[in-house]
Amino acid sequence: MYKYEEKTVNTKPIFKGRILDVRVDEVLLPNGKTSTRELIKHPGAVAIIMVTDDKKIVLVEQYRKPMEKPLVEIPAGKLDEGEEPLACAMREMEEETGYECESMDKLISLYTSPGFADEIIHIYVAKGLKKKENAKGLDEDEFVDLMEVTLQEALELVKEERIQDAKTAYAIQYLQLQEALLK
Amino acid sequence: MYKYEEKTVNTKPIFKGRILDVRVDEVLLPNGKTSTRELIKHPGAVAIIMVTDDKKIVLVEQYRKPMEKPLVEIPAGKLDEGEEPLACAMREMEEETGYECESMDKLISLYTSPGFADEIIHIYVAKGLKKKENAKGLDEDEFVDLMEVTLQEALELVKEERIQDAKTAYAIQYLQLQEALLK
Repeated sequence: MYKYEEKTVNTKPIFKGRILDVRVDEVLLPNGKTSTRELIKHPGAVAIIMVTDDKKIVLVEQYRKPMEKPLVEIPAGKLDEGEEPLACAMREMEEETGYECESMDKLISLYTSPGFADEIIHIYVAKGLKKKENAKGLDEDEFVDLMEVTLQEALELVKEERIQDAKTAYAIQYLQLQEALLK
Repeated sequence: MYKYEEKTVNTKPIFKGRILDVRVDEVLLPNGKTSTRELIKHPGAVAIIMVTDDKKIVLVEQYRKPMEKPLVEIPAGKLDEGEEPLACAMREMEEETGYECESMDKLISLYTSPGFADEIIHIYVAKGLKKKENAKGLDEDEFVDLMEVTLQEALELVKEERIQDAKTAYAIQYLQLQEALLK
C-alpha cells in the first residue's frame, strides 16, 4: 500500500451525465484526519498527431463551451463505451478530418487534470495520411473547421493564443523536439 | 461572433463544491438543433518547472484520488480566490518544495481539458533556486514527497509510467527541447 493512500470512508454520488459522473468522496488522510475530494469520472479520450507527407500538421478549430470561445486543437475525441483507443483514434481521425493513414502509433497516455478528474488521453502519431473516399462525417452536435499548417505556423498559433490546449501544445512541442533532434 | 458559437438556452446548476462547480447547459447548435453540455468550473491553477543549479528537476509525488494511485508531477496548485498566478506559483513552490527562487518566468497558460472543464494552468519556469529558511509547509490535507532528478531520470519515470500527468510530460519535453536546441 502507498504510504499516503487516501482511503474512502464514504462516497456520495452527485450526478450521472451523458459523459461525466460527479461524486464526492470523504477520505481518511495519512494523519488520521478526514477531508473531502470532489471527483469527475470521464470515459477517456484519444488525440492524434497528424503530419501530412508535405509536412503540414492537421488541426481542427471548434467552439469550446467551458471557455465560451473557439480553440485550435489536434483532432481528438472521447472513447465510446468498450471502444479500444486505437480504433477510437482511427474513427476520430476519419470523422474530424476525412483522412485515413498507413500507420498509427501510440506515443503516450496522459492524465489531463489529475487533481480532480480521471480523464486519460491516449496520444497517437498518424503517418502516411491520405484523404479517404466517403469518409464518415462528424457527430450531429459537432462542428469543426480543418486547418493544415506548418510547424512554424503552429508555433504562431500558440503565440496568438489560438492554441491554448494542453495536448495540442504537447503535440507541437513533440514535433519541435523531433525536428531539433534531426539537426 | 464565431460562426459555431453555442448559445446557452438554459443553464442548470448541479453542484457547488469546495473546488468545483458543475452545471449542464442546454445549447443552440449552429444547425438550429439543441444539445447539452456538461461543464466543470475550476478556479485555475499554476505549475512550476524547477531546475536546480546542479541541473536537477524538482518533482513531487503524491496520491491522486481520481486515479487511486500516486503520480509524480511538477509542483502545482490551485489559485486561491483573487490570487494572482505569479503569487500562487511562489506560494506553491515554497509550500510543496521549501524552495525560493531568483526568477519566476511565465512560460505558457494551457487549458487542461477543454472539452468539459475551464481549468487553465499557468506554467512558470523558476531559476536560481535556494532552500528557504522557515518555509511555510503544506496545507493540512496535502502529503507529498520531494524528488530531485536528472533529465535522464525524469525520462525514465515517464517510461515507467510514474509520470503520467500532462503538465509534467509537457515540462519534461520542454527541458528536452531546450537541451536539444543548445546542441
